[in-house]
Amino acid sequence: MDRKYVIGVDIGGQTSKLGVVDARGNVLIQSVIRTDTHDDVNYFVRDLGTAIRQLAAQIDGGMEAIRGVGIGAPNGNYYRGTIECAPNLRWKGIVPLADLVSREIGLPVKLTNDANAAAVGEMTYGAARGMKDFIMITLGTGVGSGIVVGGNVVYGHDGFAGELGHTIQVRNNGRLCGCGRTGCLEAYASAVGVARTAREILETTDRPTTLRDIARDSISSKDVAEAAAKGDQVSIDIFNFTGRILGAALADFVAFSSPEAIILFGGLTKAGDLLRRPVVEAMNENLLKIWKGKIELKFSELNEADAAILGASALAWEL
Amino acid sequence: MDRKYVIGVDIGGQTSKLGVVDARGNVLIQSVIRTDTHDDVNYFVRDLGTAIRQLAAQIDGGMEAIRGVGIGAPNGNYYRGTIECAPNLRWKGIVPLADLVSREIGLPVKLTNDANAAAVGEMTYGAARGMKDFIMITLGTGVGSGIVVGGNVVYGHDGFAGELGHTIQVRNNGRLCGCGRTGCLEAYASAVGVARTAREILETTDRPTTLRDIARDSISSKDVAEAAAKGDQVSIDIFNFTGRILGAALADFVAFSSPEAIILFGGLTKAGDLLRRPVVEAMNENLLKIWKGKIELKFSELNEADAAILGASALAWEL
Repeated sequence: MDRKYVIGVDIGGQTSKLGVVDARGNVLIQSVIRTDTHDDVNYFVRDLGTAIRQLAAQIDGGMEAIRGVGIGAPNGNYYRGTIECAPNLRWKGIVPLADLVSREIGLPVKLTNDANAAAVGEMTYGAARGMKDFIMITLGTGVGSGIVVGGNVVYGHDGFAGELGHTIQVRNNGRLCGCGRTGCLEAYASAVGVARTAREILETTDRPTTLRDIARDSISSKDVAEAAAKGDQVSIDIFNFTGRILGAALADFVAFSSPEAIILFGGLTKAGDLLRRPVVEAMNENLLKIWKGKIELKFSELNEADAAILGASALAWEL
Repeated sequence: MDRKYVIGVDIGGQTSKLGVVDARGNVLIQSVIRTDTHDDVNYFVRDLGTAIRQLAAQIDGGMEAIRGVGIGAPNGNYYRGTIECAPNLRWKGIVPLADLVSREIGLPVKLTNDANAAAVGEMTYGAARGMKDFIMITLGTGVGSGIVVGGNVVYGHDGFAGELGHTIQVRNNGRLCGCGRTGCLEAYASAVGVARTAREILETTDRPTTLRDIARDSISSKDVAEAAAKGDQVSIDIFNFTGRILGAALADFVAFSSPEAIILFGGLTKAGDLLRRPVVEAMNENLLKIWKGKIELKFSELNEADAAILGASALAWEL
């Protein structure tokens, strides 16, 4: 029997998505299960096993046609197949999820963190096809990264490499980050960071902006993007500020691995040129001369609804 | 005939060193030629060929016992075997040195930049033996770096990866760097940077220090290290300042590739614990929690007189 499909699982704080994927990157069918119902991971593993078998039953060949399962998870460790101390999940400590799932369904399982999974997905199916050296930056609630060098994801000596969201971009009086330190890229260039920049401007200036029509604590990066798209100058300035911090950070990342391209992924990229323009500008201003104008900035080409599943599934082709 | 030796060549602005190396990392014999006598690289290639043949004539087996030649050079490009626009060399533009030398002596030649060569040397013969993930930082006149991921040097898409001396550490009002930008690590953590810190303190404070006994423009990092070793508080503070900037930078580098260790090499490391203490302290203060106290900081174990030759020669074992 030809094992011609893989399954991708994207584990999130509230829900986890899974889907069956073919070699061309089509998500054939997918489903969703709850992640947050039990402190005991074994209940989740049982539910996931059931969901996988239900999906497999709907494809030609059933479980016999599945080569393996790839899982993307916050704080996922590629070497050990574990989730380690993930603040947004109910399971505490070190969870050997890959082993547990493999035992439950009788198939090989690979696991990595969500940003690394996204990088593998982009290399296998998306904007990084054919590239051997690129950096993937995920701009969601937080800022994640997946670094590919010579065609391989950089995992580091312990499996945790690629925490570029936690490089320090503002060394003095930087914003407090969720990691407990200050000045991290994530505190500025995430969706949360954009909303925070908006609140800071509303609180510290009297500049007129349509953002004042929204309850201050509920302003989201989406609100800022929508206002900016309609020409609200304060909102445009917020994207300029965000983009310039990100662009300057990217210039330092280029000095590390000299990637062919940097690929941005996640909610903030929906702002399009509002984000792209200041990022490209600040990156090139800050790059060493040998790289000025030479490093491509791309946005993800994956359909966002499928991207997390695709990224995770791509891991399973290595099995 | 068993080709059991390699030749390492370290190209510097004034002179170039070369030596015959065995598989255990012993430099059996070495010599030096001038680098700066001609604008035309062909004269240098001819001199280098002569020097290589003279060395080979003194070893068992002669040229027949040489497997190949490794060259470390400023602005060396590993993929192309070229030296590209090196500011400290008289040869302008793009010099295809590996090809020229290979044609001159009839042996295969590999070339890379000097910091990458140092990293390969450390992995083959020195403090990084057995390591697959580490970062080498060379603290000389400038600050260079060689990054090893999964046992391979990171060259990037164009052969120029690993310019960590040109990551921006001071974003506002940073010092002018030789690269034309401001705030680079190199402007602070190099030998030149240490001397500059000393001059700034002498000019902007009236703190008593034995450094005032030296003509201000001739103060070197060696003077500062010697004064610090004798207990001069200003000089100790200069190493603290330097070490703290370097340590904070290293924490960001760890977030990139999660190395097992960071290895420091070059003149400044002679300051020993004066440098090591603030570097380790600032690195751990700035590291993400998962890495605090876990990343080793080592000084090079290679005999400095031989290190450049050894590093370059290590490349030739890949041939």
